[in-house]
Amino acid sequence: MTYILYGDKGSGAFAVEAVLAEAGLDYAFSEISLEKEEQRTEEFRALNPSGKVPALKLPSGEIVTETAALMLLIATRHPEANLLPPVESPDYAQALRWLAFMASEVYPPVEIADYPERFVPDHKGAAVLKLAAKRRIRERMEAVEAAASEGPWFFASGFSLVDIYATMFSRWRECRAEGWREAHIPKICAIAAALKERPRLTAVFQKHFWMG
Amino acid sequence: MTYILYGDKGSGAFAVEAVLAEAGLDYAFSEISLEKEEQRTEEFRALNPSGKVPALKLPSGEIVTETAALMLLIATRHPEANLLPPVESPDYAQALRWLAFMASEVYPPVEIADYPERFVPDHKGAAVLKLAAKRRIRERMEAVEAAASEGPWFFASGFSLVDIYATMFSRWRECRAEGWREAHIPKICAIAAALKERPRLTAVFQKHFWMG
Repeated sequence: MTYILYGDKGSGAFAVEAVLAEAGLDYAFSEISLEKEEQRTEEFRALNPSGKVPALKLPSGEIVTETAALMLLIATRHPEANLLPPVESPDYAQALRWLAFMASEVYPPVEIADYPERFVPDHKGAAVLKLAAKRRIRERMEAVEAAASEGPWFFASGFSLVDIYATMFSRWRECRAEGWREAHIPKICAIAAALKERPRLTAVFQKHFWMG
Repeated sequence: MTYILYGDKGSGAFAVEAVLAEAGLDYAFSEISLEKEEQRTEEFRALNPSGKVPALKLPSGEIVTETAALMLLIATRHPEANLLPPVESPDYAQALRWLAFMASEVYPPVEIADYPERFVPDHKGAAVLKLAAKRRIRERMEAVEAAASEGPWFFASGFSLVDIYATMFSRWRECRAEGWREAHIPKICAIAAALKERPRLTAVFQKHFWMG
């Protein structure tokens, strides 16, 4: 019995796969193509009513969704992987904070920037909305950058799931375009470069972010 | 040394205050008026760069933000309050899932429905966006409703922070208006009614949701 991760390459599935790999767990990857809109089929919506990847089938057969929830679940059930700082340490509180911050302040505007017409069908309105969402994503990632340690990881105390999540957003279009990330979130770029060198994460990073 | 909760009545601060009260912790409430836009002052932005309430000062002096993070933090550091199912139980995974679902699928569109002109300044576009956000909130709350047990709480195994969070969203304008919630999320309405009767939560509920 292994985990089955439903998701697409380069999507939120990266964060969950990275956590599974870092924890040394056995898993299979079931590709759900976003380009073919396979996440909106009735079949996939039975797994996740929001029609979004990723979703994870646990070894027990249960389905769990929401990237941040999956990262926390695996980190909490596998404390030996040290994906979260110790519960009583100050960094534990900050890890929950910045994980939740990215989950609710960065991730949702990515849907808006990618599919603005889901919210405002009219072309001109959609373009305005897209720009506002991109601005929001960048502003919020600058807040994450400002909170990061001098390196190599977000917390001076060591690697955590915050590094995985921040790396993911830094690879996405809104941060990647126009050389924005190198100029505005250099500490997160350095985190991504260091993450790529972790023995258990190199292949996962390459699979999802072959374009860098 | 006590906790200091910065927030407004009827805001996300409800969820954090309910968790503090349910865990029997000592706290003070520092009112940040959303009507006066006190959450956007430079002073408050020093506490929370996203300019959003709530924020919590821990007894150690650290600031932590993000409603879901604060709920999880207190629940995890105070297991005796039973705000989360046991870590190895199936309900634990689902608690993280539905907490994260509401944090990233319901909460962000509330900002859009309340302040659409932050995203699309033009009047007509803002009205379209507002409607789309309201539709999204309602659709997602119906997904929460569909996952809830027959009662009295979200999980058949007992009360949890998911009940607190779902109650909060059910009290907000987008669910309250037009008698929508009674018709579409009756199980969550029953959860809110039962929550109001919990000895440690009655006063907290009344303070934030005096209009019911």
